[in-house]
Formats: sequence, C-alpha cells, structure tokens
Amino acid sequence: MAETQHMSQRLPSPADLRAARRRIAGRAVPTPLLPAPGLSAVLDRPVFLKPECLQRTGSFKFRGACNRIAALEPAFRAKGVVAFSSGNHAQGVAAAAQMFGIAATIVMPSDAPRAKIEGTRSYGARVVLYDRATESREAIGARIAEETGATLVPPFDDPFVIAGQSTIGFEIVEAVAAIGLRLDALVTPLGGGGLASGLALALEQAAPDGKLYGAEPAGFDDAARSLATGAVQRNTVLTGSVQDSLLSPSLGVLTWAVLKSRLADVFAVTDAEALSASAYAALTLKLTVEPGGAAALAAVRKGALPEGDGALVIVLSGGNMDAEILAQALSGE
Amino acid sequence: MAETQHMSQRLPSPADLRAARRRIAGRAVPTPLLPAPGLSAVLDRPVFLKPECLQRTGSFKFRGACNRIAALEPAFRAKGVVAFSSGNHAQGVAAAAQMFGIAATIVMPSDAPRAKIEGTRSYGARVVLYDRATESREAIGARIAEETGATLVPPFDDPFVIAGQSTIGFEIVEAVAAIGLRLDALVTPLGGGGLASGLALALEQAAPDGKLYGAEPAGFDDAARSLATGAVQRNTVLTGSVQDSLLSPSLGVLTWAVLKSRLADVFAVTDAEALSASAYAALTLKLTVEPGGAAALAAVRKGALPEGDGALVIVLSGGNMDAEILAQALSGE
Repeated sequence: MAETQHMSQRLPSPADLRAARRRIAGRAVPTPLLPAPGLSAVLDRPVFLKPECLQRTGSFKFRGACNRIAALEPAFRAKGVVAFSSGNHAQGVAAAAQMFGIAATIVMPSDAPRAKIEGTRSYGARVVLYDRATESREAIGARIAEETGATLVPPFDDPFVIAGQSTIGFEIVEAVAAIGLRLDALVTPLGGGGLASGLALALEQAAPDGKLYGAEPAGFDDAARSLATGAVQRNTVLTGSVQDSLLSPSLGVLTWAVLKSRLADVFAVTDAEALSASAYAALTLKLTVEPGGAAALAAVRKGALPEGDGALVIVLSGGNMDAEILAQALSGE
Repeated sequence: MAETQHMSQRLPSPADLRAARRRIAGRAVPTPLLPAPGLSAVLDRPVFLKPECLQRTGSFKFRGACNRIAALEPAFRAKGVVAFSSGNHAQGVAAAAQMFGIAATIVMPSDAPRAKIEGTRSYGARVVLYDRATESREAIGARIAEETGATLVPPFDDPFVIAGQSTIGFEIVEAVAAIGLRLDALVTPLGGGGLASGLALALEQAAPDGKLYGAEPAGFDDAARSLATGAVQRNTVLTGSVQDSLLSPSLGVLTWAVLKSRLADVFAVTDAEALSASAYAALTLKLTVEPGGAAALAAVRKGALPEGDGALVIVLSGGNMDAEILAQALSGE
C-alpha cells in the first residue's frame, strides 16, 4: 500500500496488517489478555477480556490513528493532521500526533462535553469548535486542510485505520495460542466498523476458524439491518443513547466490504444492559469501561452468544466517560 | 525451605522466591506493567502501574495464598486451609483453595460487608461468622484447625506468603528491563507488610539499585513510627479509615525483619487523598482501585517521592470495594 497522503479506497492487504504491527510497536500499549474467571464459570468455557480501555487515550482509537500518521510520507506528515470527532477518535488522533511531534487540529461541536474537549487539548491538539446548528464540520475541516496541507484522519473508513485496529486481533490470537487454547469466538462493540473490520481481517489471517460477533446499541442497529438486507442501512437519529461511542450514521464503504461476509451475528444491546455491564466491569473486572465500550460484554452477559467450548474473547473498546455516567451505572447495581 | 505444615519463622531464601514463581505460574495472572503517560508528563520521568486489582480475586493476596497452598505437602493440603479475614485475604485464600480442589474455611466477623462475605462464598469457601464483641476468632480458628487438620494461611507474616507476593516484584523488574529502562523507584501500599516485604526481596535479588517506598494511612502510621524508633510500633485503633485493606495492628516478625533496613521511606496518605486517587484511577487510568490499594498512587500524586529520572513503578494492590465507596470517590471529583 503506497504511503500517500490520499487514502486508497481498498482493503488493507496482509502486508498492510503486518506493517501496522511494526508501526505501532513501542507506541501503542500491547494491552493484556485478562482471564475472566467469573464469566468462565457461568458460561462453562474459557472467557477472556481484551481491555482497550487501558490503551493510550483510553480507547482502541489510538492504534488506527497512530498507524495512519506513521504511514504518512514525512513531507505530508510534517503538515499535520485534522480530524472531526467529539469523542475517542479525537483523543486518539491528538495523542498520536503529539507522539510524532506534528500539529493536530480537531474539529469538535461546541456542545461536546467539557471533559472531552479538555482531554483532546491535553494532548496538545488545537480544538476548533463549531456550531452544530449553523456550521458544517466538513467545510471547516476542508478549509483547515486546504490552508495547512494537513491530512484528514478518518475515524474508521480508511485502510490504515482498519489495519491499525487489526493489531488488536493479532494480539488476541497470539495470547490465546500462547496459553494453549483455541480461539472460538470474538465479540466486539460495533459502530462505524473500523475495529470490527480490523478484528475480522486479523482472524482471517491468524485464526480462520474463529467467529466474529458484533454488539450495537438497540435502536441504532444499522449493522444488523445491513446484514439482513445485504446493503448498507443507516441510522436516522444519532443521539439519545448512552452508548455514544457507537453512534455512527452507518458502516463505511470499506468496513461494509469487510464485514458483510465476516460477521457471524450482531446483537442489539439496550442502554440499561450497557450500563449494567459498565457497573459489572467496574466492580468485578476492576476496569472502567464506558457503556458503548461494554456493549460486547453486555451481549455476553445476557446470553446472546451461541454456546461453545473454545475460548471466548470480549473486546472492551474504551473507557472514556464522565464521572456522572459511571456513578449512574453504579447506582443501578 | 521444607514444605511442612507449620511455617518456619525465617525469611524466604532466593531459592524460595524462585520456587514461588514456578508454583504460581499458570495460576496467578501475570498482571501487565502499564504506562501512565499523564503521570509521566507531570513528573518528567517514566511512570508505570502494576495493577494487581486485575489479579484473580481483585487483589495481590491470591499470589501469597496460592504459593502457600501449592507448597503444602499433599497429605496436609488435602485437609484444607483456614484463614481469618474480612477482606482481600479471605477471597485470595478461598480462590486458591478452590483452584487446588481443597476445602477452605474463612472466619469472618458477622458485621463484615455482605459483598465480601458473598464474594468469599462465591469461591466455594465455608464462611464461619463470629461476633466481634463476644467471640475470639483465634479460638474459632484453632478449633477448626484441630477438628479438621486444616492449615492456617496467615495474611502476611509467613515466608511462603511473602515469597508469593515477591513474584510481583520480579515481574516488575523484568517488564521494566524489557523496555530498556532502569527501575529507580517502586512505591507500594503498606499494611502488614507482606506485599512490601516480597517487593523488597525481589528488588534485592533483581534490581538492587531500585528504592522501595511505602504508603500507609494517616493516623495508622505504625510503619513510619517503627522505622523512626527502630522497633515495631502498633496501631491502637483498627477502624475509621476508608483504606481498610491497610489496617493491620502492626508489621509482623518477618515483615519487620525484611523492611526495617529495606524501606527508603514511608508516606502517610489521608483518606481524602486515597479517595481522590481512586477517582483518578477510575476516570483516568480506567482501573478500579480501592482507596487502600491506591495509597501509593496518592503518595505519588501529592509529590511525596523524591525526584528522579529512572522508571517509577506504582503498585495498585487491590480493587475490591463496594459501589458506594467508588461512588463516594467519584462524587469528590
């Protein structure tokens, strides 16, 4: 894959996935694979957690952003990067840019939570606020890119971003193999599909018998509808769920191309189930997992997955949430 | 060290420490060493976390209990184990006994939190409740040991228990070396001293230039007073701190023998500082750390440690707390 400024709209190749692992080595945290004895006892199979909440910036997003930036030609990279995001992608891009010593401009809605704006600024990024009602973030981003020559880092529909997220899948497969087990099922939160696509491609390469499942917010089940109809379906509303990190308009061109034939099933998770999973994570697993990041855990806890005896791995994709949301989750227990 | 039922009251040898690592391999979680970029930036040195809250049963206690039980002669082991504890040690012993398929009896005060009693039972242990006001847990334990032949697993003043906790220190030293850094300082919560003693002995073997620091609850600063006076001092009161996991009457015979010459300094941490550290852990580090388990983190956050440029590692020793305490910690942020 040529390291050009503009993304080629094709799927990452096996060589691209290997290159991503080399690029993020020493930059991203190789998060551990943790046993979950309580869930293993309930499900009568070995269950493990992949806690990407422990990744730099508190979510897996750092991996894709890091690979995207690392793969840029130095002359392009020096001009900086730009991204639109009110959440985990913003912090991932900001921290990766800081690590490479380049400028990052993040376009965020002016009504984004203070904590997320401050979090993004804490990684040295310039935050440009816009009014959701009267301004277009695309227009603002295009103007910034034109003025500065900065490269846009998309949140998910990009081969370098997908390849970056695939490193999670390779780490999982290797860690499961290292303890002498067979990976049977992998469950992930599912939004725009960058993480799920990376996991799917890693499984295809390294553990082709492993099945991939997704978990998306109930009422925002575009992936399930897309699989059922065989064509990309959209969410018409993008607010109103505490699983905010999973609220994308739809799968992307690339992520749909990957996932349409590589998802064994997709489960819908209610906000109550996601909050309960966050509370379980905090009190039992000892991990802070935001409700969207806990969607796959919620699906497992409610028995959505088919039974099996091989290893089941649950991706906990992020842990960035306000204290009030965590307190709300705890109050329900 | 002979594998007898009764503990020899001597310090574990280097061979004992190596044996402990072999015994807990595949049983205890080799917890990761996690970078803490935010703390590293503030302190201008590489800072890492050793999250024993991710250990089986949610605290480091599993390691010592596992080593103690694994080292028993099979004929003694078959008769089971007994322990007194209202907290993390109870769950560590119960889970280790369950793993070896032997009976565990845990003597707990009848006013212990329901969550801890249920947690201990969830690992298959028999819980014997006693009335703090009218009954002696020692007498109850002695009767159980006499009736059943069960071996007592002490919470900290035991060479096998100390050797089990030392495995944390060896893992830290190896993980720091693997990324090409020099371990300069290690900070740990300090109660009865089993964990601190294990860390001290591991440092002595594997990183003799590394300094060990302890953090204990303000108002229960027996370790600092012991170091200052050169003799074991006691806490006269054992209730009234949210750092309950660190409230021991005093250091033990063995732990004092180890620590009197191997602690660089001990810091007092207030409950407010410990709760703030728990909130920081939950929101920023994405880890659930009980206030006592966060004492070393609290000491670092308030700038108690001397400056340095080598790697600083903070042990987060446990994460078992009621939802109400975590909510209390979050409400202060």
